[in-house]
Order: sequence, then structure tokens, then C-alpha cells
Amino acid sequence: MVKKVYNLAMKVSELGEFGLIELLADIVNKSTSASATSGSGYHLLLGIGDDAAVWRADASIQMATTDTLVQDVHFTLDTATWEELGWKALAINISDIAAMGGVPRYALVTLGLPSDTEVKDVAQLYRGMEEIAQRYDVAIVGGDIIGAPLVIISVTVMGSATGEADYPHNILTRAAAVVGDLIAVTGYLGTSAAGLQMLKSNMQFDKETTFLLRQAHLRPVPRVTEGQILLAEGGRAAIDISDGLVGDLAKMCQASGVGSRIGVDKVPVHPTVRAAFKDDCLKLALAGGEDYELLFTTRAELMDRVKGQISCPVTVIGEIVADTTSQVRLIDAEGKEIQLEKTGWDHFAWRGRP
Amino acid sequence: MVKKVYNLAMKVSELGEFGLIELLADIVNKSTSASATSGSGYHLLLGIGDDAAVWRADASIQMATTDTLVQDVHFTLDTATWEELGWKALAINISDIAAMGGVPRYALVTLGLPSDTEVKDVAQLYRGMEEIAQRYDVAIVGGDIIGAPLVIISVTVMGSATGEADYPHNILTRAAAVVGDLIAVTGYLGTSAAGLQMLKSNMQFDKETTFLLRQAHLRPVPRVTEGQILLAEGGRAAIDISDGLVGDLAKMCQASGVGSRIGVDKVPVHPTVRAAFKDDCLKLALAGGEDYELLFTTRAELMDRVKGQISCPVTVIGEIVADTTSQVRLIDAEGKEIQLEKTGWDHFAWRGRP
Repeated sequence: MVKKVYNLAMKVSELGEFGLIELLADIVNKSTSASATSGSGYHLLLGIGDDAAVWRADASIQMATTDTLVQDVHFTLDTATWEELGWKALAINISDIAAMGGVPRYALVTLGLPSDTEVKDVAQLYRGMEEIAQRYDVAIVGGDIIGAPLVIISVTVMGSATGEADYPHNILTRAAAVVGDLIAVTGYLGTSAAGLQMLKSNMQFDKETTFLLRQAHLRPVPRVTEGQILLAEGGRAAIDISDGLVGDLAKMCQASGVGSRIGVDKVPVHPTVRAAFKDDCLKLALAGGEDYELLFTTRAELMDRVKGQISCPVTVIGEIVADTTSQVRLIDAEGKEIQLEKTGWDHFAWRGRP
Repeated sequence: MVKKVYNLAMKVSELGEFGLIELLADIVNKSTSASATSGSGYHLLLGIGDDAAVWRADASIQMATTDTLVQDVHFTLDTATWEELGWKALAINISDIAAMGGVPRYALVTLGLPSDTEVKDVAQLYRGMEEIAQRYDVAIVGGDIIGAPLVIISVTVMGSATGEADYPHNILTRAAAVVGDLIAVTGYLGTSAAGLQMLKSNMQFDKETTFLLRQAHLRPVPRVTEGQILLAEGGRAAIDISDGLVGDLAKMCQASGVGSRIGVDKVPVHPTVRAAFKDDCLKLALAGGEDYELLFTTRAELMDRVKGQISCPVTVIGEIVADTTSQVRLIDAEGKEIQLEKTGWDHFAWRGRP
């Protein structure tokens, strides 16, 4: 592996979120390898770089992931209810466990709250968490409450691998895509980003459209069962779409050492989003993010079986290729390659995201 | 159990941190009990209310804890280096695992950073984390980096129980204190609070005093080995001192359904702190917090064995009593009861704590 040299005389906004993660992964790699084999029965299987960390704990495979929502960075209290925030903060973490094909089990919740926050609002936030926790049989087992100048909701979800198979056949990773695999997604893409745009710009739609877009953005539904089916039926690589199709697919290709070709006309957009956003819907679907659908690959001959087992829509949108000069090649209906100006979110470049 | 009725028409500053935690624990109790027995081989042993959550995962006992530092609430960049912050953010979480008698193993780190943060500062923060991670053989296995208006460092540490004993004999809880137990602490108390006062008020001391106080406040040393020895040698209840001796002892007594008597003249204060802070040192030791020493109880006949095995100072400071009218009774050298105006930190009542 080539050792990267970093210019430390920069602001984090110049290096960007992903550059920073890479740098920090470099710093902690030493400790990770030191601890990876320590302790009888304990062995680190996956550290920084996938949807969740994974380790062997005696007979079981454990996994853990964490994600945080910060007021005025990830949400505003003008457009989201406290209950929706509670749901979403837990949902985005459960989704990472889903993308590993795992079973989410326990959650830790840290709340940063301004001192003038209303207790009833915090209770609503917890009710939203409680609702999704019950739906997915996750227990909230601890956490921390701190004073802060703005609302921060930080969640860790711990889970475990299912089934009898041995590692690595009992989890889905980003790094397992193979040339020739078909690429598919669950559900529809761009609906959450459309919801965000509606909320930000106070766009007016009919009741059903408003409900669909708001739900997609503020009450995403993690694909836990779908991840487990995928694992059982021969799915190969998987990632949940949090940063946007193109950005997350690029991460998968990077981790797997492959390239990809996507037919942009195949990318599934909900008819309601297509009707409401017309020509913009493709950009929302390609780069919008926060749909928390699963993006996965599998051998072509297994795709029909996977589609037959998963009850939500599954759409094949492209294939894994050997050419890595461009990690994600976007091809239109006429077979011409198209470019996206910006793929995925960078929390430092794109401030004020809500 | 008596169902508490909460007044939700309050600010969180009026209800206070501990009241809020109690309320939220009430809300999530349903999901906790629902999930506690779900999944073959998985069983929640301890949820909200101890230093860490604990569960059975097939053959192993897993534990997890989380703690967050927020700029201008828990630290200022004027008085702490980035490296010290990295050390401390991980140390305070490792300390919670130590207080369970467990082995810390894996950590997730979430950083909230303003976009104009210098990359070299973030690298220093990670070096501080890396240093303590290596010392305790903890692997940093993942996390999240987010844009935020101020620095937030949120850490989750996951660990496991040691030894062959069955639950609950393989962990130390807050709830295990028994009437007649002796109460003891490791190390010295009040040194961290003295350090905080020195940094806040820019107090000038000689080099050695300055070093001792600064280290105690910004590079606390979690008592991991001591916690494990305590467990092996018959320690009963344990908690780490984060909020202050009186506050944390009150939590232990509450959880155990007992009371306590402390001889204030027995509370160990470092000679340097006594010399530098004179009459104030007792208040620092009783209420200061953030020493991350272990406060524990054990049967009187086992105390000498425990003291003999643990290499740091261990001081008996009182005993567990049946009378619960006052959870913590403070007795001076003349046998008279004394009162503390304020015990422990409340993050909403005591804003701007650094």
C-alpha cells in the first residue's frame, strides 16, 4: 500500500470530510492492527471504512456504528418535529447495520441540548426513537445528556451477524463487489432529497405528495429484513445510500477495487417525485442522498432469486466493470456518458445542508 | 415500582440532567423490556443507569458506554491542547468500562468540527486518542465526522467481561452495595477539579504542581487493571468518580437501596493539592468530579486483600448503612455531620463549566 503524505497546514473545509476520514484512519491504523488480535476470542474483522465495525467476540460476530445529527447542519427545528428527529437519528444507524446484513440490537443515545429546551420536546424526541426501536426490536440501553448551545443527537447502534455461515460469508461488506456483478437498489432514489428541497424552499404540493416527501426525508425506513435476505440469497457487496447513489457507489468501487457503469434511465424514481420535480428528479436520484435504500451487487444469475425474495421494489441499474479510470460511469439512454457536477454531500463544503 | 408523574411544561434546565435521564429512562423502559429477551442467545442484563450497558451475546458478556465533550461546556481550546482533548475523550469512556470491572476493546469516535478547524489540530486530537488507545489496547474502529459550529467529541467504547464467573459475578455494578460494606476510593480526589480551577482562573503554581493538576484534569488515567482486580478479589459495588464523590456515591446508594456515612477527614487529598488549595481542597475532593478514580464497596474482611492487590493507593473513607434518610452523610473528625451546598455537576444548572 502506498503511504499517503498529507498537507496538515489546511482547514478541514479544504481537506474535506472524506480526506479527513482517510487521514484519521491512517493515524489509528497502528492501534487497530495492534488490538486486532488481542484478547483470547476477540478479533477485529472490519475497522474504519465500512458501514459498521465488525469483530469476533468468542462465538459471536458483533458490529457497531454511529451517526450524529446536528441542528442547523443536518436539520432545522423549523421543518422537522422532535418526534421525526428521534426516528431519523435511530433510523440512519439501524440502516448501517442493515447494510451489513446484520441484526440491530442495542442503542446508546447522546443528546446535546440547550438549557432552554422544553422537556416536552425531548420527551417527543424519545417517543420517536422509541417507536422505531420497537419496530426493529432495538433496546435503548444507555447514553448521555449534555448541555450544548444547539441540539445534537448522536446515536450508536450495536448489532450482530445472523445465520450459521462463517466470516466473511455472514456479513455484507462494501469491498466484495466483483467484475461482472449486477448493481441494484431497493426502493426509489431521490425522494428524501426531494423532501429536503420541499422543506427548505417551502414548496407547496398536494397532500399525498407532501406526505410522501416528508416521510422519505424525516422518517426513512431502514432495510433490515432486505439486508438479511440479501445476505442469505447470495448478495455480494452492499452499502446504504446516505450520501447519494454516485457517492456511495464510488465508495463501494473504491473499497472493492473495481469500476461501475450505471444506466441513468434505469435509476428508479418514484412517479410522484418525477411528476413534482420533472427534470430535476434525476439529479436528486443520483446525488441526493439520505434515502437509506440498499445499493448492492450480486452475480447476474442470482439477481432474479434476490428480487423474488425481497418484497420491496429491487431495480437493476448497472454493472461492475474492471475499468477503474472512472469509478462511476453514468450512461444515458442513448449510450452517451454524462457528468454530474457534484456527487454526494461533504459536510464541510456544503454547510447549512438542511 | 411507583410510576412517577412528570411535569413536561418545563425547560430542561429546570428539570436538570438527572431528572431528564430518569424521564427518558421511563420512556424507553418499554422497548428495553421488549428487546431484553429477544434473539436467541441475546439478553440485556443492564440497561440505562449504570456506568455501561451490559448484555449477553451468546457465550460472551458485552458492554458499551458513551460520553461526549462539547467545546465551551466541557472544555475550552484556550486551556486544553487538542492532544489532551483526544486523550480525555477516550479516557472518560474507558473509565466507565473500568468501573464495571471489564476489558475495554473497541471505540467509535464522532467529531463535530467547525469548517475552519486546522487539519493539524485534528491530527493532534487523534494522536492523543491513539496514545491512550495503545496504552489500553483499545482499537478505534469507526466513527463519523460532521460539520458543527463548535468542537464536539463523542466517543463510544465497547468492552467485555473478564473471567470465568457467571453473571452477575463477572461485573461490578452500582447496585450491589450491602449494609456493612466498607467504602473506599483509589488514588486521590479533587486533583482534577483543582486543575480545572487553576486553568479557569489562570492560577500560578510551581512547575510540579502545575503539571500534576493539569495532568489530573486533562489526562486522567482510567483504573482498568484496578477494576479487574477489584472484581476478582471480591469488590462488591463500583462506580467511577466523574460527577464528584458525593454525587456518585449518592447514585450508588440510590441504585443499591442503602445509605452511607463518610468520614470527611479520611477522604484522600494529594499533599500538593492540600498545600496549594488549603481549606478549599475538601470541597474539591467531595464535589469536584472528573478524577475518574474508582469508588467501591466491599465486605470489611476482604478490604485488606483488595488493598494488597491494587498497586495504587486505596483509602477506606466510610461505610454503607441501612438508614437511607440521607444517602450520603458527611461526618467530620469530631463526629459532627456537615453539609455540602452543591454536590456534583449538573450540565444544565452549571453552564460554562470549563
